[in-house]
Amino acid sequence: MCELLGMSANVPTDICFSFSGLMQRGGKTGPHSDGWGITFYEGKGCRTFRDPKPSCESKVAQLVKDYPIKSQAVISHIRQANRGGVALENTHPFTRECWGKNWTYAHNGQLTDYHGLATGFYTPIGETDSELAFCWILQEVSKQFPIKPDDMKPVFRFIASLCDQLRALGVFNLLLSDGDFVFAYCTNNLHHIIREAPFGHAQLIDENIEINFENETSDSDVVAIIATQPLTDNEVWHKMKPGEYCVFCRGEIMLTNT
Amino acid sequence: MCELLGMSANVPTDICFSFSGLMQRGGKTGPHSDGWGITFYEGKGCRTFRDPKPSCESKVAQLVKDYPIKSQAVISHIRQANRGGVALENTHPFTRECWGKNWTYAHNGQLTDYHGLATGFYTPIGETDSELAFCWILQEVSKQFPIKPDDMKPVFRFIASLCDQLRALGVFNLLLSDGDFVFAYCTNNLHHIIREAPFGHAQLIDENIEINFENETSDSDVVAIIATQPLTDNEVWHKMKPGEYCVFCRGEIMLTNT
Repeated sequence: MCELLGMSANVPTDICFSFSGLMQRGGKTGPHSDGWGITFYEGKGCRTFRDPKPSCESKVAQLVKDYPIKSQAVISHIRQANRGGVALENTHPFTRECWGKNWTYAHNGQLTDYHGLATGFYTPIGETDSELAFCWILQEVSKQFPIKPDDMKPVFRFIASLCDQLRALGVFNLLLSDGDFVFAYCTNNLHHIIREAPFGHAQLIDENIEINFENETSDSDVVAIIATQPLTDNEVWHKMKPGEYCVFCRGEIMLTNT
Repeated sequence: MCELLGMSANVPTDICFSFSGLMQRGGKTGPHSDGWGITFYEGKGCRTFRDPKPSCESKVAQLVKDYPIKSQAVISHIRQANRGGVALENTHPFTRECWGKNWTYAHNGQLTDYHGLATGFYTPIGETDSELAFCWILQEVSKQFPIKPDDMKPVFRFIASLCDQLRALGVFNLLLSDGDFVFAYCTNNLHHIIREAPFGHAQLIDENIEINFENETSDSDVVAIIATQPLTDNEVWHKMKPGEYCVFCRGEIMLTNT
């Protein structure tokens, strides 16, 4: 399968610490060696670094690890290919425009009988079940909401109902963002943690790195991290249930079904 | 204004040499300090590195300069902002999907009275005249050709006719690619050169770097470089005329109006 990593924060925050842990799983402490990618939102823009090479030996991953790009919404993915070969066009995250916003998507899992999903105007570029499901979601969303509503809660409830349909086709763990919101949907493996004052120490599981968040943050910072598996071994992560979804906005949960 | 750089090659080729020259113009030998970007096609996929910082001091530009990503189609841009502030969402190249292919676009120039251009399904994310014109072009193309034709010549002739309309609104120098073709359209400043055997030495204008292409290539390589201004001072570059367009495919010109 693959691993997902997402962040939502109330101030521009770098994800170097969490990304350092994740990239070790791309061929070193984990088997996810078929590429990796990360999307940072900065204002209305976003930029994606992607590589079909294993993250543990990627020069681009090294840059992302060392260069603190500050963002309020991040989505990352390391890949163990099942549907679709090892190639850039099959490497997550995928990005498409809807309502004049960049939507970014990364999927962990595998679907069957997905070829009937109609994608309308959004045509997949690669061969993955994941990108096809993304195109289907955006197509359904833009059909249901031709214009972006001011209140995004109905949109995310609708997206969650689409995820329920995809979960019936297999394993569908999802991170999705439009830059303001980070939506997380769980089939079987997704955890999150919200860090806020008083901040403490955290120790990565996958690399011998410890951080004292107190030195890196101010008292009003709120940072949510979402990951397939916990990245630290001395903090309490919330394990999401099958069918559970959470919508994070500026580090806080603004909508959930639990 | 801005500067454009494009490449089309018959074998995967790195653009480190030309990019080294261009990035000096981003705040050092040139005034284009409001961001830069580069898109590399690799198979059906592409990846874009972008930064709203000046290219001459960007860590990401340094990586691109040092890390030879091999590609058969590249589009790059350094920006001197006129329409739209200095921000990631206003930084070229822009990419959108059409017919299940990534289309990448970079514009040099400035348009007036462009707000009437209807963009249909493609909604601009940032505030530039450039991105709006890109959305308009893709909208018109997908209206005229709902399905990708096997013969792309009529598509590029149609795109050239759209460029003629945009040229009536101001300065419109364009690089556009779908990964297979690199389309170049000139209003006032665009040059190209096709390098093939026998290869010789080239000397960058903007940095003290010389290269002997004979050592870097094989006899069957064909590489076309398109740039706002020549990047080398000991080679003959073709200066394009107002209204001239060229479509490059695998390093060779497959369509032009001259």
